[in-house]
Amino acid sequence: MNVSEAILTKRAVRKFQDKAIPDDIVHAILNAGRRSQSSKNNQAWQFIAIRDKETLKAISTCGEWASHVAGAAMAVAILIPDPNEKFQHLFDAGQAAAFMQLAAWELGLGSCPASIYEPEKARSILGFPAEWHLRLVLSFGYPLDEKLLSAPPQKGGRRDFDDVVHWDRW
Amino acid sequence: MNVSEAILTKRAVRKFQDKAIPDDIVHAILNAGRRSQSSKNNQAWQFIAIRDKETLKAISTCGEWASHVAGAAMAVAILIPDPNEKFQHLFDAGQAAAFMQLAAWELGLGSCPASIYEPEKARSILGFPAEWHLRLVLSFGYPLDEKLLSAPPQKGGRRDFDDVVHWDRW
Repeated sequence: MNVSEAILTKRAVRKFQDKAIPDDIVHAILNAGRRSQSSKNNQAWQFIAIRDKETLKAISTCGEWASHVAGAAMAVAILIPDPNEKFQHLFDAGQAAAFMQLAAWELGLGSCPASIYEPEKARSILGFPAEWHLRLVLSFGYPLDEKLLSAPPQKGGRRDFDDVVHWDRW
Repeated sequence: MNVSEAILTKRAVRKFQDKAIPDDIVHAILNAGRRSQSSKNNQAWQFIAIRDKETLKAISTCGEWASHVAGAAMAVAILIPDPNEKFQHLFDAGQAAAFMQLAAWELGLGSCPASIYEPEKARSILGFPAEWHLRLVLSFGYPLDEKLLSAPPQKGGRRDFDDVVHWDRW
């Protein structure tokens, strides 16, 4: 799948088959995050790949709209340094998330980010140290509705080009 | 170019040829950002595509390491709502940035993000209103060193997989 096709067809997937992700695909997704770009190539992130069902369920309770994590075959917690220290930390987490999710889509897997609104609860579940912070987790899995993988882009799913793009200045 | 190849080979490009980007490619890059995913599909962004040479030069003075913007064929300023309001704004800007940069790479263009440390100076140059905020600009252009587009990944360019990935918990 070429890049433009992945970008055009990718959509959020929140319901997954009860089917494990093969190890080589797990590795490919995480490696895409590792290969992502970051401010000054700092790579100021750590990834916790979660496949344990009880842990997935526990993390799904750390955000109001994070229930999809409970049914994921894998979730990836993107740990960053204190997001209030540098604005680049969250931006770079977003870049890594996009790399992982596009890589997964090419391999036939859906995904969706989940916001973590109870980060200290998540810390106690995952056991990461005080200098790392969690705001976003990604769910991954084979879509329950496999047609999503080859469906045409949804009409009206995005704002119009001219509503978003300005030329040279506002 | 498939997604995995783009992710594996993409590198930061900061020196560009003095060569304009055709309109259809400009459109494809911006459209990749428009198609990107965002928290609750909010699409809380506006893009200013800058090709005017004087504006590019002016923006290149708004960040300590932003000089590459001056030589870009195009820069894209990613405007977001107040980043202190919701942590998702910067994360989603990062996702859109990754989509645009991977789309550009497939089309033979290099790119690099530039942090904006003088956002109010940038505001006065670009004229965007108070409810929008700028922290990151992306440079785009044809690489001065065209070999970069097909070069193998740099050795040691990223931390080792096992230094970044944890399994199920820290």
